Amino acid sequence: MTSMTLADLHPGRIAVLAGGIGGARFLMGLRACLPPGQAQITVIGNTGDDIWVHGVRVCPDLDTVMYTLGGGISAERGWGRETETFVVKEELAAYGVEPTWFGLGDRDLATHLVRTQSLRAGFALSEVTAALCERWQPGVRLLPMSDDRAETHVLISDPERAGEPGAGGQPPTVAIHFQEWWIRHRAAIPAHGFRVIGIEDARPAPGVLEAIAEADVILFPPSNPVVSIGVILQVPGIAEAIRRATAPVVGMSPIIGNAPVRGMADACLAAIGLPTSPLAVAQHYGARESGGVIDGWLVHADDAGVLGAVEAAGIRGRAVPLLMTDVAATAAMARAALDLAAEIAGSPDRR
Amino acid sequence: MTSMTLADLHPGRIAVLAGGIGGARFLMGLRACLPPGQAQITVIGNTGDDIWVHGVRVCPDLDTVMYTLGGGISAERGWGRETETFVVKEELAAYGVEPTWFGLGDRDLATHLVRTQSLRAGFALSEVTAALCERWQPGVRLLPMSDDRAETHVLISDPERAGEPGAGGQPPTVAIHFQEWWIRHRAAIPAHGFRVIGIEDARPAPGVLEAIAEADVILFPPSNPVVSIGVILQVPGIAEAIRRATAPVVGMSPIIGNAPVRGMADACLAAIGLPTSPLAVAQHYGARESGGVIDGWLVHADDAGVLGAVEAAGIRGRAVPLLMTDVAATAAMARAALDLAAEIAGSPDRR
Repeated sequence: MTSMTLADLHPGRIAVLAGGIGGARFLMGLRACLPPGQAQITVIGNTGDDIWVHGVRVCPDLDTVMYTLGGGISAERGWGRETETFVVKEELAAYGVEPTWFGLGDRDLATHLVRTQSLRAGFALSEVTAALCERWQPGVRLLPMSDDRAETHVLISDPERAGEPGAGGQPPTVAIHFQEWWIRHRAAIPAHGFRVIGIEDARPAPGVLEAIAEADVILFPPSNPVVSIGVILQVPGIAEAIRRATAPVVGMSPIIGNAPVRGMADACLAAIGLPTSPLAVAQHYGARESGGVIDGWLVHADDAGVLGAVEAAGIRGRAVPLLMTDVAATAAMARAALDLAAEIAGSPDRR
Repeated sequence: MTSMTLADLHPGRIAVLAGGIGGARFLMGLRACLPPGQAQITVIGNTGDDIWVHGVRVCPDLDTVMYTLGGGISAERGWGRETETFVVKEELAAYGVEPTWFGLGDRDLATHLVRTQSLRAGFALSEVTAALCERWQPGVRLLPMSDDRAETHVLISDPERAGEPGAGGQPPTVAIHFQEWWIRHRAAIPAHGFRVIGIEDARPAPGVLEAIAEADVILFPPSNPVVSIGVILQVPGIAEAIRRATAPVVGMSPIIGNAPVRGMADACLAAIGLPTSPLAVAQHYGARESGGVIDGWLVHADDAGVLGAVEAAGIRGRAVPLLMTDVAATAAMARAALDLAAEIAGSPDRR
């Protein structure tokens, strides 16, 4: 391949690593910028946020992608179902059962009931996800990163034992589920780090490694680089598959200026000792040519000043509008990511 | 005890075997006719109707008693919760998962979620029921007949294979869950019989045999004699405990004239070869002095004509209004049952 062709501009197989809201909104734009029926998009979704709550299995990121692309998402909240009611949640609170902080909507609960019953019947999460998608028709192939349970936990100073010195004079550290930190505490308790419990034994779900190996383009949407894409990359075999993939890998900064576009990615970056900047995230992913996982990086138009440093890290950078204000704006951003990927694929120094 | 005392009129310990709506309404009257705080009512509830549906454990009869006495029942339907919504049910149907005929309300579902999670955590149904009752404060001690799974099934001619001769030239018989027969088919498919699967190995729940042995009065409300009280009596040890109890046992006819007061008890009686009549049900229970389970029997005022035959069967009978039109009418009926019990207890031929 020595020059760009239509096939470069309209790649046939696109693999996308995705968290929740940011990933889902990006996928809306990606789907919109491609000619219908020509591309196959495989989404490898983060399941580190998954949680058992009130006896049902909740997969927040998979569901956000499924509902968003399937037209069932709450546009107002960005998660959960539109025209949602919370009758069951109120009743559970009336019974005094915990947790009360988890936003379990009635419509959403039906998804969890179907999933839970299917999982208990012995089906794998990837099979269950495919079955749920038969209703939602998201127009992408949605795969969990793994069928195995691997849940992100957050290390915090035990709030119950503040002032009590633990090892080294620090208050004792406890691990709470990511959802408890994120939703109940709104990421306001300083995190000392993250542990994805079970990740060592998690295997990539069927189709994940193949989707990466066979992709024409691999994209990292502006999802959380620590607890969304970062967790997917911790599944043994996935980062290695991305390093070895023939496709170019292009990421998009979830940080604009020195703040996350949405969500609380800054708290996550701080927990792993990184500044909240587009450059720091690019460096954290690292250039594939130096053992990292990306080849290209989009920063927001106003952040063009960091491109020199991005390029110096061996990563091809572009500054384009990254605010996903509507599907058209997001489609333009997705187009820019595909264009950069095509440029990288067609680049003489890569051939 | 040679004459009636206040203690006879206001017995301290009352054990009641109960199905769903009929039992629950009777208990409203029983509770109302007793001075507050003086009597301890133990309800031994039918769990043969219980079903796993959409991955949650539903105990229709226990919940009907709990909601009715706790002020949460739908007065209109007689089962399920007041001001109920059916959002989850609609969503489950949108996923195409079966069964769609089960009336799973949102408020009600919260009860099943709490129950299911507690059961899966290892608690017994009797413990879970007590925990649920902490919210509802039904004013009675509500015990499941058993903590073990034993579900009523209905033998019907296979509707899928009508006309296909089975053994003996009859169409093949299949067993469907009682709920499917009762709700989905509205008991309109002729039943050849009932099988309570698992009943041989079911043990009475903790407290059940003690409640029967220690009772001052044992009552059979006008619940379904076949699939409600009849199933409770099939739990190994319960019928025997009732036969040996020191307390008088008084039942109330669920049949008025030749029709059930409500529900489809006639279809159940027909299935076991009994006519739909107050006398037939009394004879089916049988006099304790002849190896049966009752001493006294209330028939409706208009059915006084059967009392001679009831007495001839060794059962003391009374004709009183048995329509549970409101709590006051039901309290009068409960009072009549207690009066008959006191008369039996004080009767010289019983001493």
